[in-house]
Amino acid sequence: MNTLDFSAATSSDGVLERDFTIGGVPGVLWSPARDAGGGSERAPLVLMGHGGGTHKKAPAMAGRAARIVADCGFHVAVIDAPGHGDRPRTAYDEQEIALMQQAMATGEAVGPIVVRYNAHLAERAVPEWRATLDALQELPEIGSDGPVGYFGLNMGTAIGVPLVAADSRIGAAVFGIFWHDPLAETAKRIGVPIEFVLQWDDEHIPRASGLALFDAFASRDKTLHANAGAHKQVPRFEVDSAVRFFARHLGGTRRLGGGS
Amino acid sequence: MNTLDFSAATSSDGVLERDFTIGGVPGVLWSPARDAGGGSERAPLVLMGHGGGTHKKAPAMAGRAARIVADCGFHVAVIDAPGHGDRPRTAYDEQEIALMQQAMATGEAVGPIVVRYNAHLAERAVPEWRATLDALQELPEIGSDGPVGYFGLNMGTAIGVPLVAADSRIGAAVFGIFWHDPLAETAKRIGVPIEFVLQWDDEHIPRASGLALFDAFASRDKTLHANAGAHKQVPRFEVDSAVRFFARHLGGTRRLGGGS
Repeated sequence: MNTLDFSAATSSDGVLERDFTIGGVPGVLWSPARDAGGGSERAPLVLMGHGGGTHKKAPAMAGRAARIVADCGFHVAVIDAPGHGDRPRTAYDEQEIALMQQAMATGEAVGPIVVRYNAHLAERAVPEWRATLDALQELPEIGSDGPVGYFGLNMGTAIGVPLVAADSRIGAAVFGIFWHDPLAETAKRIGVPIEFVLQWDDEHIPRASGLALFDAFASRDKTLHANAGAHKQVPRFEVDSAVRFFARHLGGTRRLGGGS
Repeated sequence: MNTLDFSAATSSDGVLERDFTIGGVPGVLWSPARDAGGGSERAPLVLMGHGGGTHKKAPAMAGRAARIVADCGFHVAVIDAPGHGDRPRTAYDEQEIALMQQAMATGEAVGPIVVRYNAHLAERAVPEWRATLDALQELPEIGSDGPVGYFGLNMGTAIGVPLVAADSRIGAAVFGIFWHDPLAETAKRIGVPIEFVLQWDDEHIPRASGLALFDAFASRDKTLHANAGAHKQVPRFEVDSAVRFFARHLGGTRRLGGGS
């Protein structure tokens, strides 16, 4: 079994940030700073999948992680997706990225390329995520039987839906901003609580496609959050809502203002 | 101009509850208990519309009010809708209620009756609400230029949509759980921030009808919350979300855990 190979560790504002690699995949683990001394008080874990073209420490990832650590006292882990961040691109990666850039430049629909390329990335990423989760659960401050959530929009959903369908350790997930085909078939096998985000005026993803993906989840407990606005205009308060979703479903260790 | 005629006042758990009538319509005003001594520190006001068959002090109203007063420090006012609570029923009220009960007993669709009857109630209720708001704004702890919100699902939406369209003092609203026809035409005239709740598996309101009503609002800032489950299974955490919505848009006086 692969284990986490920790390199750098820094701490600020009550958040401990530890860089790691596992089987050659670089990642980052954010934790409550009390764990700096190797404290063994266990806390839930949220896996976060970053969007296409970004990486494990993009501002959206660091910002969401800081909120989850501060408000819930949970751990948050992100790994670079294949071909992203500190990872090399294959010739196929380069080819698909060039096609996407070309489509965007000429105003062609990027959807079919994104859907196809992200399905390919998911095939590579799911086993990496599962090995990462194996190793994270070896840490005493996480443990092998604690609650685990997943949070990923855009490409983070393209990778997350097959991951959550494949790995029964993940008990709650926030998804969104993706096309229904081909994910909807996989979503039918997911029964854990889901919060699903879509943009009502998305210029890339047809409204009916986003609604169909939400509809496909078998979960009895699922919520759709649809906001007016374009593809990239997801309101910041959706992060707040996701934090509260994880507090409800993974078990918050701190008092949040309200709750169900 | 009608003024509020206060009768009973009680205080518990930091919430001051004052019964009033205005032009013969009974209502209740919940406020932070600091106002018991006639304090004049102004705070925003949320008007709440109750559901069909219930009344101004139904548990859902009292519970939501307690949350808004405690978490935001706002005032909350509810009046009995025509034919509801402490108000007499007309012969027409009795007739429509009998038809609804008969439809529910025989398994017929209640939608057409609810839609027709609630449109009638809204015609009576909107002028009552506007007079109530006039009088509430005479109170020094509310004032005539402070932020005002509206929160009402079911019949509270049937009355609230024409109210918010007619009264520019209301600057943010939470609606939901209603048919699009005939409200959608009125909703096109509403541009204030909206949070809209619907039940994904509503056995009375077709999904497309609820989505069409959300779609109709002209608001640039609008959010749909659709939850899996039947007509009456709106999750309790939607109250929590509504509280945070009003804190964002009317200006919270207390720190909530997070925010946009």
